[in-house]
Amino acid sequence: MSIFTESMITECAARALMRIRVSRPLVHNITNYVVMNTTANTLLALGASPIMAHAREEVEELATMARALVLNIGTLSPAWIEAMELAGAAAAARGVPVVLDPVGAGASRLRTETALRLLERARPRVVRGNASEILALGGGAGGKGVDAAHAVDEARASASDLARRTGAVVAVTGAEDYVTDGRQAVRVANGDAWLGRITGSGCAATAVTGAFLAVEHSALAAAAGALIAFGIAGERAADGCPGPGSFQVRLLDALAALDEDTILRRARVRMEVVA
Amino acid sequence: MSIFTESMITECAARALMRIRVSRPLVHNITNYVVMNTTANTLLALGASPIMAHAREEVEELATMARALVLNIGTLSPAWIEAMELAGAAAAARGVPVVLDPVGAGASRLRTETALRLLERARPRVVRGNASEILALGGGAGGKGVDAAHAVDEARASASDLARRTGAVVAVTGAEDYVTDGRQAVRVANGDAWLGRITGSGCAATAVTGAFLAVEHSALAAAAGALIAFGIAGERAADGCPGPGSFQVRLLDALAALDEDTILRRARVRMEVVA
Amino acid sequence: MSIFTESMITECAARALMRIRVSRPLVHNITNYVVMNTTANTLLALGASPIMAHAREEVEELATMARALVLNIGTLSPAWIEAMELAGAAAAARGVPVVLDPVGAGASRLRTETALRLLERARPRVVRGNASEILALGGGAGGKGVDAAHAVDEARASASDLARRTGAVVAVTGAEDYVTDGRQAVRVANGDAWLGRITGSGCAATAVTGAFLAVEHSALAAAAGALIAFGIAGERAADGCPGPGSFQVRLLDALAALDEDTILRRARVRMEVVA
Repeated sequence: MSIFTESMITECAARALMRIRVSRPLVHNITNYVVMNTTANTLLALGASPIMAHAREEVEELATMARALVLNIGTLSPAWIEAMELAGAAAAARGVPVVLDPVGAGASRLRTETALRLLERARPRVVRGNASEILALGGGAGGKGVDAAHAVDEARASASDLARRTGAVVAVTGAEDYVTDGRQAVRVANGDAWLGRITGSGCAATAVTGAFLAVEHSALAAAAGALIAFGIAGERAADGCPGPGSFQVRLLDALAALDEDTILRRARVRMEVVA
Repeated sequence: MSIFTESMITECAARALMRIRVSRPLVHNITNYVVMNTTANTLLALGASPIMAHAREEVEELATMARALVLNIGTLSPAWIEAMELAGAAAAARGVPVVLDPVGAGASRLRTETALRLLERARPRVVRGNASEILALGGGAGGKGVDAAHAVDEARASASDLARRTGAVVAVTGAEDYVTDGRQAVRVANGDAWLGRITGSGCAATAVTGAFLAVEHSALAAAAGALIAFGIAGERAADGCPGPGSFQVRLLDALAALDEDTILRRARVRMEVVA
Repeated sequence: MSIFTESMITECAARALMRIRVSRPLVHNITNYVVMNTTANTLLALGASPIMAHAREEVEELATMARALVLNIGTLSPAWIEAMELAGAAAAARGVPVVLDPVGAGASRLRTETALRLLERARPRVVRGNASEILALGGGAGGKGVDAAHAVDEARASASDLARRTGAVVAVTGAEDYVTDGRQAVRVANGDAWLGRITGSGCAATAVTGAFLAVEHSALAAAAGALIAFGIAGERAADGCPGPGSFQVRLLDALAALDEDTILRRARVRMEVVA
C-alpha cells in the first residue's frame, strides 16, 4: 500500500482527468431514474463515455466491457437489485472497478439491506455516500430521507471501520469530504454549498469517481481526485450563480472546461493518518 | 369548515412558504419518469426535502415517515400502481396528507381507472389536474394525450362535484386556476403561458402542493397557496425569457428566490361561493 | 416513388415545421429513462404534443390515437420490449408511422436482437441511428457502448441494404447525416459537434423525426427534414456556447425559435443516387 502526500493526490487528480479526456473510458451506470440524465451528461462533460443499462439480460455483458461500473440505489425495485448484483459480481470477477452509492441507506430497510448486500457481492473499490448513509452502513442510526442529517465528522469512525472491514475506500461527502482506506485519510475541502441545493450532485460525484477509477489504479487517489475535480467545478459554477437552475447548467459547463492547471492550482487537500 | 377571504389565502401562502424553508419537510414522491428530476429540483428550490421511491418493499415505510405524499400517474405500470395504492393507504391511515396528479386521465382507460382507484384508496386531500383530466374523473370526455383540450371553466362543475363526492380539494390549473372544496372556490390568476410550453410544469405544481400540505392544515389554503407561489415564480421566470430551455432554468431560480413579501405583493386571488 | 431534388427536400422541411406548429400532432414515445424529459421538451419546443407511456395495458390504445410512434431502445427490460412490440404492431396495423431508434445496437445482444425484432414487428417508416448502430443492424461489428465508433460513410452500404430489405428509410447521423430509402440518398450537413457532447441528442433527433412523420407523407423527406431542422437548431445553439450545460438550454430555445425562413436559408442538403 502506497502512502500518499497532498501533492501526490493532487497530481494524480490532474493526470487522471487528462487520461479520461484522452481515452474516453466507457462507464456503465446502473443508477436511479432521478439522475440518469444528469449523470450521463456529467460523464460526457468530464470526457468519459457513459452507458446506462439495467436489464438482467445485458448487464453482465456490458459491465465486463466497461472500464468502470457505477451502482447507485437511489430508486430501487427487485429487478434492479438483481441487475446490480449480477453486474457487480461480473465486474468484480473480471477486475472492472466498481463504485457504490448507497443513496438513502438508513432511510428504509430495503436500502440499507441492498447496500450491505452489494458491498458483499460487488466488492466495490469505492463507496461514496453522505454522513448519514455511511453511518447506516456502519450500523448507526442513519438519516431521514436522502439528505444528510449528520455532519461528515460524525461518520469518520464508521467510514474507517467500513473501509477496513470491506477493503473499499470510503468517501464521505459534505462540507469537507473525508476519503479513507482505513489507514490514511484525505480531506478534500473543494466544493460549494450550492451542490447541496440541486438533486443528484452526490450521484454525479459518484459517477465521476467511476470515471477516475477507470484510469487510476489507486482507489484512494481516484476517489479523492474525483472529489477534487468535481468540487472545483462546483466552486466555479457557484461563482456569481443566481439560483439552482443556473447552477446545474454552470456545473456541466465548468466540468467540461476543467483542466489540469486548474486542478493543480485549486485543489485543497489534507492528509491524515487514521487513528 | 373555515371561510377564507382573499387576504387570508394570500397570507397563508406566504406563511406556508416560510414554514417550508424553516422545517424542510420530507416529501415522498411516487411520480413519473419524465419529471422525476425536475420534481426533485423543484422541491429543493422551494426549500423542501424530496425523496423519490416506488418499491413496494419500502413505500409504506417512507410514506409514513414523510410529511406529505405526492402520487402522480404520468407513466404507469402495474407495479407502480400497486406501490401508489400501498403508499397512499399507509399515508391516509397515518394522517400524512396525499396529493394526487391524475396525468392523462381520460387519455387511456388505464389512467382513468387508476386515478379513480387512487381517489378511493389514498383519499387525497388535494387532486390537481388540467381541465381535461378533471372532466374525465367527473365522468366527462377527457382529452387527447396529456395536454389539456378543455378550458378551466368547462371543468368547474366537475371539480365541485368531485370535491363534494370525495372530500378532496380539487385544483384545476390552466390560464386561471380554479381551486375548490365544493363550497368555496379560489381563482388564482398567477402564472404564465410559458408554463404550458415545458414538460412537467403541472407535475411540479402538484409537488409544490405536497410541500404546502406538509405545513398548512387547510387543504384549500395549501392548494391555492402552492399555485400562487408556483405561478409567481413562473411569472418572474417568464420576464424577458428567450425560450423554453431558459424558462426551465429560470423557473428553478425564481422558486429559490421567492419570498414572503413577493407573495403578498403579487398574489392575484379571487374567492367565489360555489353555486 | 418520387424523386426529390435538394430544393424539394428543403421546402418539405420548412412546410412540415409549419404544419407541426399548426396541428400540434400527438407523438407517442416509448423511450429510455435517460432522455424522457429532454425528448418531451424537444417535442414541445418544436410544437408537437408528446405523450410518454409504456404500460402494456395502454400502449396500443395510445399508439393508435397518436399521429406518430417513437420507439427507442436506450434502456431496455423485457416488459418494455413487449410494450414496444405491442405498440409498434398496433401502430403499423393502423397506419400510424413508426420511427425506431436502435440505441446501442451492437453493444449487447439484447439490444441488437430487440432492434431486429422491432424492425419486423413495428415495420418502422424510419430507422435513425449512429453509424455503429446501423452497421450492427446490417450484420456488422457494432460499437462499444452507445457512442459511435464508426464514421457515417462506413455505414452507407449497410444503410442502403437495410432500407431495401425492410422498406424503411434509414438515417445515419454523424458529422454529415446520410438518409436513404435504398435508391436515393440525402446528405444533410446541418448540425454541430456540440450535439455529440450532450446525452440524448440522437434520441431527440429521432423524436423530431416522429413529429415530421406525423405531418409529411414521404418518409425520406420527413427524416431529412427533421435532421435539417434539428441540425440548424444545433448550429444556432452552438454559436458562442460556453459549455454543454448551456448547449442543452440553448438547443431547446433554438428549436422553439426556428422558423420556415431560417430552414430555407440555412438547409445544407445534397442528393445522391445510391449505386
